[in-house]
Amino acid sequence: MRRQCVWCILLIQLQIVVSQYKPTWESLDSRPLPQWYDEAKFGIFIHWGVFSVPSFGSEWFWENWKGVNSSTYVSFMKKNYPVDFTYQDFARYFTAEFYDPNAWANIFKKSGAKYVVLTSKHHEGYTLWPSKYSFSWNSMDVGPHRDLVGELAESIRSKTDLKFGLYHSMFEWFNPLYLHDKDNNFSTQLFVTSKTVPELHELIEKYQPAVIWSDGDWEASDSYWTSKEFLAWLYNKSPVKDHVVVNDRWGKNIPCKHGDFYTCTDHFNPGVLQPHKWENCMTIDKHSWGYRRNAELSDYRNTHDLLKELVTTVSCGGNLLLNVGPTKDGVIPVIMQERLQEIGSWLEINGEAIYSTRPWTSQNDSYTKGVWYTTSNGKTEENFVYAIVFEWPEEGLLSLAAPKLNKDSSISMLGTNFTLRWMETKTGIEVRFPDRAKAPNWMWCLKISKVENRYTPNVNLLI
Amino acid sequence: MRRQCVWCILLIQLQIVVSQYKPTWESLDSRPLPQWYDEAKFGIFIHWGVFSVPSFGSEWFWENWKGVNSSTYVSFMKKNYPVDFTYQDFARYFTAEFYDPNAWANIFKKSGAKYVVLTSKHHEGYTLWPSKYSFSWNSMDVGPHRDLVGELAESIRSKTDLKFGLYHSMFEWFNPLYLHDKDNNFSTQLFVTSKTVPELHELIEKYQPAVIWSDGDWEASDSYWTSKEFLAWLYNKSPVKDHVVVNDRWGKNIPCKHGDFYTCTDHFNPGVLQPHKWENCMTIDKHSWGYRRNAELSDYRNTHDLLKELVTTVSCGGNLLLNVGPTKDGVIPVIMQERLQEIGSWLEINGEAIYSTRPWTSQNDSYTKGVWYTTSNGKTEENFVYAIVFEWPEEGLLSLAAPKLNKDSSISMLGTNFTLRWMETKTGIEVRFPDRAKAPNWMWCLKISKVENRYTPNVNLLI
Amino acid sequence: MRRQCVWCILLIQLQIVVSQYKPTWESLDSRPLPQWYDEAKFGIFIHWGVFSVPSFGSEWFWENWKGVNSSTYVSFMKKNYPVDFTYQDFARYFTAEFYDPNAWANIFKKSGAKYVVLTSKHHEGYTLWPSKYSFSWNSMDVGPHRDLVGELAESIRSKTDLKFGLYHSMFEWFNPLYLHDKDNNFSTQLFVTSKTVPELHELIEKYQPAVIWSDGDWEASDSYWTSKEFLAWLYNKSPVKDHVVVNDRWGKNIPCKHGDFYTCTDHFNPGVLQPHKWENCMTIDKHSWGYRRNAELSDYRNTHDLLKELVTTVSCGGNLLLNVGPTKDGVIPVIMQERLQEIGSWLEINGEAIYSTRPWTSQNDSYTKGVWYTTSNGKTEENFVYAIVFEWPEEGLLSLAAPKLNKDSSISMLGTNFTLRWMETKTGIEVRFPDRAKAPNWMWCLKISKVENRYTPNVNLLI
Amino acid sequence: MRRQCVWCILLIQLQIVVSQYKPTWESLDSRPLPQWYDEAKFGIFIHWGVFSVPSFGSEWFWENWKGVNSSTYVSFMKKNYPVDFTYQDFARYFTAEFYDPNAWANIFKKSGAKYVVLTSKHHEGYTLWPSKYSFSWNSMDVGPHRDLVGELAESIRSKTDLKFGLYHSMFEWFNPLYLHDKDNNFSTQLFVTSKTVPELHELIEKYQPAVIWSDGDWEASDSYWTSKEFLAWLYNKSPVKDHVVVNDRWGKNIPCKHGDFYTCTDHFNPGVLQPHKWENCMTIDKHSWGYRRNAELSDYRNTHDLLKELVTTVSCGGNLLLNVGPTKDGVIPVIMQERLQEIGSWLEINGEAIYSTRPWTSQNDSYTKGVWYTTSNGKTEENFVYAIVFEWPEEGLLSLAAPKLNKDSSISMLGTNFTLRWMETKTGIEVRFPDRAKAPNWMWCLKISKVENRYTPNVNLLI
Repeated sequence: MRRQCVWCILLIQLQIVVSQYKPTWESLDSRPLPQWYDEAKFGIFIHWGVFSVPSFGSEWFWENWKGVNSSTYVSFMKKNYPVDFTYQDFARYFTAEFYDPNAWANIFKKSGAKYVVLTSKHHEGYTLWPSKYSFSWNSMDVGPHRDLVGELAESIRSKTDLKFGLYHSMFEWFNPLYLHDKDNNFSTQLFVTSKTVPELHELIEKYQPAVIWSDGDWEASDSYWTSKEFLAWLYNKSPVKDHVVVNDRWGKNIPCKHGDFYTCTDHFNPGVLQPHKWENCMTIDKHSWGYRRNAELSDYRNTHDLLKELVTTVSCGGNLLLNVGPTKDGVIPVIMQERLQEIGSWLEINGEAIYSTRPWTSQNDSYTKGVWYTTSNGKTEENFVYAIVFEWPEEGLLSLAAPKLNKDSSISMLGTNFTLRWMETKTGIEVRFPDRAKAPNWMWCLKISKVENRYTPNVNLLI
Repeated sequence: MRRQCVWCILLIQLQIVVSQYKPTWESLDSRPLPQWYDEAKFGIFIHWGVFSVPSFGSEWFWENWKGVNSSTYVSFMKKNYPVDFTYQDFARYFTAEFYDPNAWANIFKKSGAKYVVLTSKHHEGYTLWPSKYSFSWNSMDVGPHRDLVGELAESIRSKTDLKFGLYHSMFEWFNPLYLHDKDNNFSTQLFVTSKTVPELHELIEKYQPAVIWSDGDWEASDSYWTSKEFLAWLYNKSPVKDHVVVNDRWGKNIPCKHGDFYTCTDHFNPGVLQPHKWENCMTIDKHSWGYRRNAELSDYRNTHDLLKELVTTVSCGGNLLLNVGPTKDGVIPVIMQERLQEIGSWLEINGEAIYSTRPWTSQNDSYTKGVWYTTSNGKTEENFVYAIVFEWPEEGLLSLAAPKLNKDSSISMLGTNFTLRWMETKTGIEVRFPDRAKAPNWMWCLKISKVENRYTPNVNLLI
Repeated sequence: MRRQCVWCILLIQLQIVVSQYKPTWESLDSRPLPQWYDEAKFGIFIHWGVFSVPSFGSEWFWENWKGVNSSTYVSFMKKNYPVDFTYQDFARYFTAEFYDPNAWANIFKKSGAKYVVLTSKHHEGYTLWPSKYSFSWNSMDVGPHRDLVGELAESIRSKTDLKFGLYHSMFEWFNPLYLHDKDNNFSTQLFVTSKTVPELHELIEKYQPAVIWSDGDWEASDSYWTSKEFLAWLYNKSPVKDHVVVNDRWGKNIPCKHGDFYTCTDHFNPGVLQPHKWENCMTIDKHSWGYRRNAELSDYRNTHDLLKELVTTVSCGGNLLLNVGPTKDGVIPVIMQERLQEIGSWLEINGEAIYSTRPWTSQNDSYTKGVWYTTSNGKTEENFVYAIVFEWPEEGLLSLAAPKLNKDSSISMLGTNFTLRWMETKTGIEVRFPDRAKAPNWMWCLKISKVENRYTPNVNLLI
Repeated sequence: MRRQCVWCILLIQLQIVVSQYKPTWESLDSRPLPQWYDEAKFGIFIHWGVFSVPSFGSEWFWENWKGVNSSTYVSFMKKNYPVDFTYQDFARYFTAEFYDPNAWANIFKKSGAKYVVLTSKHHEGYTLWPSKYSFSWNSMDVGPHRDLVGELAESIRSKTDLKFGLYHSMFEWFNPLYLHDKDNNFSTQLFVTSKTVPELHELIEKYQPAVIWSDGDWEASDSYWTSKEFLAWLYNKSPVKDHVVVNDRWGKNIPCKHGDFYTCTDHFNPGVLQPHKWENCMTIDKHSWGYRRNAELSDYRNTHDLLKELVTTVSCGGNLLLNVGPTKDGVIPVIMQERLQEIGSWLEINGEAIYSTRPWTSQNDSYTKGVWYTTSNGKTEENFVYAIVFEWPEEGLLSLAAPKLNKDSSISMLGTNFTLRWMETKTGIEVRFPDRAKAPNWMWCLKISKVENRYTPNVNLLI
């Protein structure tokens, strides 16, 4: 294991020195995943933009209103705005007067997340930084009059040890240059050459993001977007070449096939082990990535459900990227702050079973539903298996089928000092839980030593 | 007890038929408290107004900015608004586009509250109904363009069995007629006769509130305000004379001395039994009654603390009036919805120990901190004492000093089917709690039958 | 003549000392007209208010939109404003950022006007001064954040010798107190006692206007408005009692019957001598008193027509009150400035024939159309008759039928040094005009000495 | 002369057929001036844009405020806008709700102008048409939500026979792409290739303007701008190649040297004959091209001065391009309408002396100041010289030194039927004017036949 790691590092260095990545998927896919990303497990996604002004329906407000002509949006506009109000007119009211990136950084840090991904530009095309390529349609020229990206990058880096990443939409629903190319069946690349690519370079050079979370790619091929060329530059020459990770949304038919990690679809959570590193991007608001002013309590996922999402994702080899939608004022809604804080307080106790772990032989227990496994195998001197239990077992007795124990094996519960009594049964083992009044909140994590089962092959290094 | 109640009803009817209340405190104070109010125990306070637009600092925004010239407010305005922006200019942006009074009614109902008190007019003078006496400075003329009071009254009454009450500020910080009277040391009553009194009559005749929650009285005497005359009319002739309750803020030196119930000061919670019916008006946001856009999670009281506030208040003979501050959009912030829902879920199980109860001989236990008592004495066929326990006892054993039990006494826990084992000790009794995994959330309520202690004299009927 | 004037002054002083005006029209009508007003002849009317914000249609915007539901206004609103925008919402945009009352004073002074009348409050109810009786619906609280009335009063008085007067609307279209009284067929006086009368007193005490130009009276009687009582106070005790003049709009059936001067109807210009002092209030914009942003050149009366209006009015014993409508920015539209400047330049040359003159025996000539007369009779040592000629006569020969001359009579043209040759004809006289290249602009005024015709009785002293 | 014209037409056709213009100034300058332009003499310039919103100072508002930091602008913003308001934020308030291009067309037509030039984009970069290259910073996306250019083009063409032209600014003060190139000393052309040139092509293909009035060129060379290449395309291949005219602002050191007509500097009016066709672009507002809300009457040139500007310009071979600045509402200020209408009424009588004329041997008279000449030479069957007299001569006698008459010569006055008497004097001739009461307004035009002086060589065909 250790040796393997030395090899791996040597291989990486070799590749950097001797050869360079070529603009082919075969070559690009050969790049090892930077280790920090697999170990992080939990990140925060932030959807913020002009859509945070109407703050109604979802961040797809513009498209739903003017593209699809959804009656919900049309009548919302009719009721509340002058008849010829345009989407761009909203930008003026994107005030961000309470935007305090240090406060955000602190919230994210306390959530236990290890990285942050901010929408530098969503499909609306409005850039949250003063882009040279988006004159008068960016956060410095209209609205906040601040470099929202730059300020958060600075705060995240100076106040926390989280990684700072950026979401970026390739296409823009209503950009006439894009529509021009689309009308030409993407045989022209006016938009890509004068907007998408220069803007990506600007973003990377200026803010050196650790994650490029690409999106809005699906209408055109990776050739139209010149994705492979861009990634070759990113991996070979960009200032972030050593540590950056990218997702898989680089053109039609690319997602789930190429990229550092796969996102496949939104809210992707397959429930079974995946052969390639992946990420589950998930929302607190069940119905929207952007903030909705009129969301109700029942629209928000509760902490227990969010923790289940985290655990099942990590058990199957994924990272969870949990989304928050700040208000146009620049505030992370308090209900979301509460969710993040509760996740953070759980991770403070149980983080050992999450961070830097790997999938285990079994992902979840076949006997008792709602028990999911991770392992520290290969990451620590002594190996442990972690069983995370979603519901307190009836009468405090939990039966597990997956772990094979021997007489030296022992089981403890994270957050307590208890060594739990266990006994073999014909279906596996039965573990006696302690007095619940002395156990921590939300979910319970059993740390099991000396498990006999063979380790799962490490999927991440097989890429 | 029962007989007493019959007497009481007869007395009330007699007084109504034979005599009328006179405009003296002696006479007014002789009016029995309408029973519904004492039984309700828990109400919702709503602070909504033009201050919900800046939504910064507190609902005293105008006074802090222009009266006191607080630098916090002055610089907030300087940073975000044109230099000569006035408070009145905010009214335009009080949009209330998501105001759905049926949804509010539902939230309040699920909270377990039994009445609602809305700020019909705060010290700013802006009326949330189309008052004849506030032309162009009311919610129909500027801002929402709706009768906010009327719509909520209608929803509360048609969708719930909660009582609908109204807060009303006597004075208005910046009303020139009021300032005129004030400059004359209140020897003139221009403001009272042309504004306060006509407006109160209008409010009552139009919306028939069950509570008049008076405020803003403190700078002038009850004579200036003609409070006694107003109350005599209210009790004798108004359409709400039989059921209305009023608080105690009717002029300088009146609070805590006269009125149907006493509020004394904001957040009043004396912790000991009071000789007169009282109310604890309390906020979820620790620092403000009005919504603050930039409030942080730590600014909000958590559910456990709010439940403690409810229980201690009721134990000492008070009602809790818990405040929410809707947004200018017309939404009750989700974090507040969550607090209310959690209180409601607790009351659904434990309401028996709260609603229609009376203070018991002891208010809280002298041996174990954080145990408070109520009793059903005189309200139910069989009498019970309720001990509400804030923290789960160590090792599941709770010692109580107050209740004297006999061999027929029994103890159960609300929300469970358990009869709890108990034993006498030298300091009182010791109760064994059940498995916590099977007990309800937040706090635990022991229902004790056949308690020997003499009943406390019923404070409410002593008025 | 002179003696008569001495008597008149003695009579006035006697009346002031010995007796007081009673609240009857007979008594009030016995008050002599303050001399300055008759001599002034030309004043400026200013219509400014919240209606200057939509600045569309006319100053009756609110009534046309919400009272009458005129489709023009309804569709204007639909096209340009959110669906629930109210009239009061406009006030926020009444910015007046360029309002420079000194500049206004200068423009009015150069126009040759001798008094100014500003709408202190139009039918909308919004006061252009910080009235105690119009909290939050006045120019200090919402919009300009300035005392528009006070600033103009100060400038007019310190920078010019014009008199400063105020227009005031009795009723307010949408004031609920007024509507309350109206619903009661004006049997109640809630509005009058709490609004109209206190506000009038406030106006007069604060700004001491030389003219009270009342309006908005027509729906109710003078008894409802307590007009006679108000005027008795005004004439007897107010700080402006010696010099103030009022018009005739003091209740249903009062106009054209009582008051210091009669206005009868808007744009009143009867074309024949009137038995009582009167005023022609007239607009530059043919279609509106308030500014209209979309008015076209052809909507504005030209200078020649306005001068004709002035001359015919003065010839028949009236004053001209010419209206301008400032913008919401606080600017007098340049096209109006130009009209005023041109009138002023004409008056600088021909003012002798206008100011302090009286109607003559004939008002206009019966032989040649477009020739109107005034006289200096009784005002100057030597008497003159002035013939004002609207069109340059064909071949420079003007025939006049009215003036009877003798051999000592002579005719000159104002603005030149010429003595004109004239000869008797069978229809009267024929006057030879000079070279037009040497005559002044616009209209020409012949000054005739030693006219034989008997003077007309002075209508103004017959009141 | 006539033959020369035939040659000229043949030459033009030859050049079109046989050869094409090359991207050298030598070749481009060889193109003959399209005849319509020289004959038009009088055009209307329109400055409209986002600067029409603050409408303060001048159309250089942005640069004066943010580039130069002029205290006037800084304090205007401080006084009236929130502290972080940006120039782009103004665009929202560019409402154009009264913009009626048919009405504009009618106003221009009645002014006697023969062409119109609208600012399609000023230095602010905001395009008055929905440009593909200015996403979210154009009149369709933000503000009017209309194609301001397209609508005017349509109205001008369908309602009048005026030519429609477009002003276009090469540079944009604050476009980051331009600033990028500038920072590189214009060694890069990011801005030119992705913005200026594509946008010019779009403009021309979409709106087919008859005039391209280039500006904002002065900081960089014609090479940077690729001006010569653009003009070669314009002259050779564009849809307007046959009739388009362009000015001379195509790069540093180009103005007054190359182009179809020279503008040299703003308000260029040299007062002497120029060797190349030129244009005097001139404002009605003395201090600004864009509308200023607070301009005073004295800031506007009067009609007499504007007519002098027209006549002196035409006498010296130029065209007058007279500027109007519409309001943000879409209205041409009425004072400007009046100026245009008065010019139009003068041209209706005297247009013969202006349109299609040529400079004469003398441009102005050496004996009497304020007399300027034009001639119909070569344009009509019989040749005339026109002497335009600015001031009515004293005693009606005008002395002229320039024209040599013979006995067959005759002099008439345009707008009358008079043949004027004249006599030779030792300094030239003396002309007797008619009765001024029968002459037209403003200025007087003498039409002189059979003048002996040799014609001036036609400067326009010498290019």
